[in-house]
Amino acid sequence: MSLNYAKRMDNIKASEIRELLKLTQQPNIISFAGGMPASESFPLEELLKINKDVLENQGTVALQYGPTEGYAPLREAIAKRLEKLSVKAEADNVLITSGSQQGLDFAAKIFINPGDVIVCESPTYLGAINAFKAYEPKFVEVPTDDDGMDMEELDRVLSSNENVKFIYVIPDFQNPSGKTWSVERRKKLVELGNKYNVAIIEDNPYGELRFEGEILPAIKHYDTEGRVAFLGTFSKIFSPGVRLGWVVAEEEFLNKFILVKQGADLQSSTISQLELARFLELYDMDAHIQKIIDLYRVRRDVMLKTMEEEFPKEVKYTYPNGGLFTWVVLPEYMNARELAIKALEKNVAYVPGGSFYPNGGNENTMRLNYSSMNEEKIKEGIKSLAQVIKEALK
Amino acid sequence: MSLNYAKRMDNIKASEIRELLKLTQQPNIISFAGGMPASESFPLEELLKINKDVLENQGTVALQYGPTEGYAPLREAIAKRLEKLSVKAEADNVLITSGSQQGLDFAAKIFINPGDVIVCESPTYLGAINAFKAYEPKFVEVPTDDDGMDMEELDRVLSSNENVKFIYVIPDFQNPSGKTWSVERRKKLVELGNKYNVAIIEDNPYGELRFEGEILPAIKHYDTEGRVAFLGTFSKIFSPGVRLGWVVAEEEFLNKFILVKQGADLQSSTISQLELARFLELYDMDAHIQKIIDLYRVRRDVMLKTMEEEFPKEVKYTYPNGGLFTWVVLPEYMNARELAIKALEKNVAYVPGGSFYPNGGNENTMRLNYSSMNEEKIKEGIKSLAQVIKEALK
Repeated sequence: MSLNYAKRMDNIKASEIRELLKLTQQPNIISFAGGMPASESFPLEELLKINKDVLENQGTVALQYGPTEGYAPLREAIAKRLEKLSVKAEADNVLITSGSQQGLDFAAKIFINPGDVIVCESPTYLGAINAFKAYEPKFVEVPTDDDGMDMEELDRVLSSNENVKFIYVIPDFQNPSGKTWSVERRKKLVELGNKYNVAIIEDNPYGELRFEGEILPAIKHYDTEGRVAFLGTFSKIFSPGVRLGWVVAEEEFLNKFILVKQGADLQSSTISQLELARFLELYDMDAHIQKIIDLYRVRRDVMLKTMEEEFPKEVKYTYPNGGLFTWVVLPEYMNARELAIKALEKNVAYVPGGSFYPNGGNENTMRLNYSSMNEEKIKEGIKSLAQVIKEALK
Repeated sequence: MSLNYAKRMDNIKASEIRELLKLTQQPNIISFAGGMPASESFPLEELLKINKDVLENQGTVALQYGPTEGYAPLREAIAKRLEKLSVKAEADNVLITSGSQQGLDFAAKIFINPGDVIVCESPTYLGAINAFKAYEPKFVEVPTDDDGMDMEELDRVLSSNENVKFIYVIPDFQNPSGKTWSVERRKKLVELGNKYNVAIIEDNPYGELRFEGEILPAIKHYDTEGRVAFLGTFSKIFSPGVRLGWVVAEEEFLNKFILVKQGADLQSSTISQLELARFLELYDMDAHIQKIIDLYRVRRDVMLKTMEEEFPKEVKYTYPNGGLFTWVVLPEYMNARELAIKALEKNVAYVPGGSFYPNGGNENTMRLNYSSMNEEKIKEGIKSLAQVIKEALK
């Protein structure tokens, strides 16, 4: 017996990260593979108090159905917090989603007919590639340098491809590359979006996790025509386990996300939304984020310093000013998928970088996460990884 | 500026129920419109204890990412509880979803190419129609009587339509009709599924809420070839606000749901899954459900008795043995959408039945919910509604 599935199912493969994460659950593995926040940063005591407060004072509301758009005080608090990224928004511009992953799925659902084009950075977030693939798009990758996407190349791509529906970008501490776009490129991206009437999906899970320098205005800040949808999440600044993120867009555009949310799961968790709203009301989220930043900055320093000391000089990597990842480019003759098996034999895990290119290639790259392991393990893991790389040198 | 959305967006309209619910949030409205469980049935005290327990003992796990498939002890507990409905399942057959609404979205995502056929009961659940429409199917409705779908007509439909991908049914206390399928029809449905190699999506949110008589085996019980996916939810027996449901299917079939879940939102809430698993471990879920049954049985009795006393004899309605709804058929010349406005003027709300027919028509019907209003309000609301109907009599 074989059921007759939709054509799109030919496109959908298991995420390499999720499969790898299963292998790396053993406690003796040093994992640079996932994108997990440090669990020691979770606000356990605060949540304990808040849960009691919410259940005792708003219990029947918390456990009941709520509006698809989300809990109004949480939408308002998010709109307010976005001032930090220079995004102007009212509560009505905010839709609560189940993590920003859901916003990615919705973006493709809203825009993509089979064969339509999604333009993205090269490399780009694996989870987005997987979400988008269900809608059978064509991906066009645009090269990036240390300032973001190559704008001349983007102009060329937009002028020479039909049915480009949106440009997908992660401008701050990009996943996987760790790079951040310059202000000039942000402005130029919106200009090109306007010129070619293409939507922009700005995915910003790490923007507030900046270790040094000043937070740059989001691309949404430069949006003059309401074509930018901004995707955010509490996963990296609060907890991924509660599955709460958001989409910010102008009313007509946001309304498409809301319609799609209705059919997809009606609404996100009422109780988690009430708890998060209460947390934002009672505690200092910025102080909480500062603790996470201080933790991750040290880990980034340890990882980068150890790489500097241990990696052969042929290996290049990003120096990220925030976020969770650094990106490693090995000599072209090396294959990071093959090395991943050798690394696992030494109890070290990472994600081979080829997975972050929707059209394949670039097998000499790897993504390393520094947020979830402690300093000692980072040192040990990078030393082992350096060993594996050295053994592969020609 | 107008963005260039996907073709599927032409199909997606705001759910009439969700829009209506916004109007009916005022406290003076007697609402028979939603499908909300009685909030006085929520296990607030138990959850307060459990939340403390989970945060103190498993806090860092509860707030972290977890597997896409769901939290293993919860999957196991669900598999075990399904024995009540004569469904044989192991933990590996269970995927945790964000409400069973998400399972409906996934079913269409897995099976439907534009133009493919979904066969459903006539009428059928509005939320399913909305979820499915995003994938651009053709709906073929099969008439139902008091024993379920008309099996001769179903055979005819399956033999005369190409690209039928699945049959969608709610066999227990159907939403909106309140009717329950006989055992014979359940068996016959699986036979026809086998004969025509068509999948069956069994949606069962109310099966355990039986007021009298014995629980019937689920359709999944009769599945001989692994073509039935069973969708369940904790929304009606625990809390809709925590957004937890499940899909049960054979491994290869379930794997499609898991792949789609990965792209859609990675996973459902870790903390809510841990809490629910702990609830099932520490408390007697069956006793909890019995309390809900006792509450709803009385409400059903009051609603049906008042209808009997107050409604004109030209009006027909279902006598449901469980679940949340009764279904009213008015004389053909009446229009329940028009009457809904008159009812709202008398502070009574319901959902016009026409919305439950994917291909339209049947505007002389309405769905009434009896779970969320107390007895006094039910009496008062039905009396007002009877007034509205009497005034429309020719």
